[in-house]
Amino acid sequence: MSELSRGKFITLEGGEGVGKSTNLRFVTQWLENRGIEFIQTREPGGTPLAEQLRTLLLQKRDERVDPTAELLMVFAARAQHLSQQILPALAAGKWVVCDRFTDATYAYQGGGRGLDRTLIAQLENIVQKDLRPDRVLLLDLDPVIGLERAAATGEADRFESEQLDFFRKVRRAYRARAESDPDRYAVIDASVALPEVQQQLAHVLEIIAGTP
Amino acid sequence: MSELSRGKFITLEGGEGVGKSTNLRFVTQWLENRGIEFIQTREPGGTPLAEQLRTLLLQKRDERVDPTAELLMVFAARAQHLSQQILPALAAGKWVVCDRFTDATYAYQGGGRGLDRTLIAQLENIVQKDLRPDRVLLLDLDPVIGLERAAATGEADRFESEQLDFFRKVRRAYRARAESDPDRYAVIDASVALPEVQQQLAHVLEIIAGTP
Repeated sequence: MSELSRGKFITLEGGEGVGKSTNLRFVTQWLENRGIEFIQTREPGGTPLAEQLRTLLLQKRDERVDPTAELLMVFAARAQHLSQQILPALAAGKWVVCDRFTDATYAYQGGGRGLDRTLIAQLENIVQKDLRPDRVLLLDLDPVIGLERAAATGEADRFESEQLDFFRKVRRAYRARAESDPDRYAVIDASVALPEVQQQLAHVLEIIAGTP
Repeated sequence: MSELSRGKFITLEGGEGVGKSTNLRFVTQWLENRGIEFIQTREPGGTPLAEQLRTLLLQKRDERVDPTAELLMVFAARAQHLSQQILPALAAGKWVVCDRFTDATYAYQGGGRGLDRTLIAQLENIVQKDLRPDRVLLLDLDPVIGLERAAATGEADRFESEQLDFFRKVRRAYRARAESDPDRYAVIDASVALPEVQQQLAHVLEIIAGTP
């Protein structure tokens, strides 16, 4: 009896300036070289409606954005993305490589904005049911360095405009999640030179690809 | 000890073509005549961000909209509306007259789309905590008549484009909620001539204004 096996769900996480875009390209190149079928996507976003929600989330505005409203928008985009993109791809046996996912919600809305983790977990269960990423690649970097790097790359959006203290909390929340489940999180030291970062990534990808 | 008393929170509900706009004007005129301070607002909407979410919700699109995503967008807009408009107005002693609120979510997403009522109640508690409208004015009408009336008024949005069966379920859900709590719901027969509808509304408004 042959059954198409479900694809792997890999997310790339990290604060500002950790080199997510560059390393995302490395990951997808690695998969292409191996002939592994995958889709590359991002959060918030990944479908036309979810991308529209992303635009609303990132826009700087005069209006104060209620943190619960922000959280619900993030999960609305996620529900749409899951139903239209992620779940169908996984079911078709493809890998899904996603630039940020629910760990970013715990880090930014939970750590950064101080929203109750229980509330985030409640929404996670509503929207994702049992689905969790198979592996989270966390690019870890001191936000002092990250913000310096990020400052070089154009105008900041509503999140990027937050202060150092916010990003310290984001990093702390990311690391706490990684420590709580070391099998599912790979913490990548993003402070070293790029070839060394990518050596770490390749090592983790070998392990994931080798796991049934 | 004098304390500014909290304003009344009144919502107007009903399916398509029940005459909500006309009767909303009657309600606000009645309040003006009495010299009662109020704000008039609507859902989804009521703040710049919430109105942007409304636009995304009503837009017809090629993409199938996941019902949970739709529900979360509705409650995201509501969280923003509550924090920026409704709660401050009530706290300042003003009445709030709102064109649709959470009963519409139970009717459209619950009744119409068949989403689990427990899920809606869970989000209602997250977003509203203890807040519920003081009185819901439900304009009740057979959707066969309602859709005929509505057909005369321009192009239909994503909800208005639903079929008769959808609006039968919407009406049934509205009426079930009204029956479950007759003190809080005033069911207004919207099938009769306008002056008679407004006589019913005036009668209910007298009662609300007379209640401490």
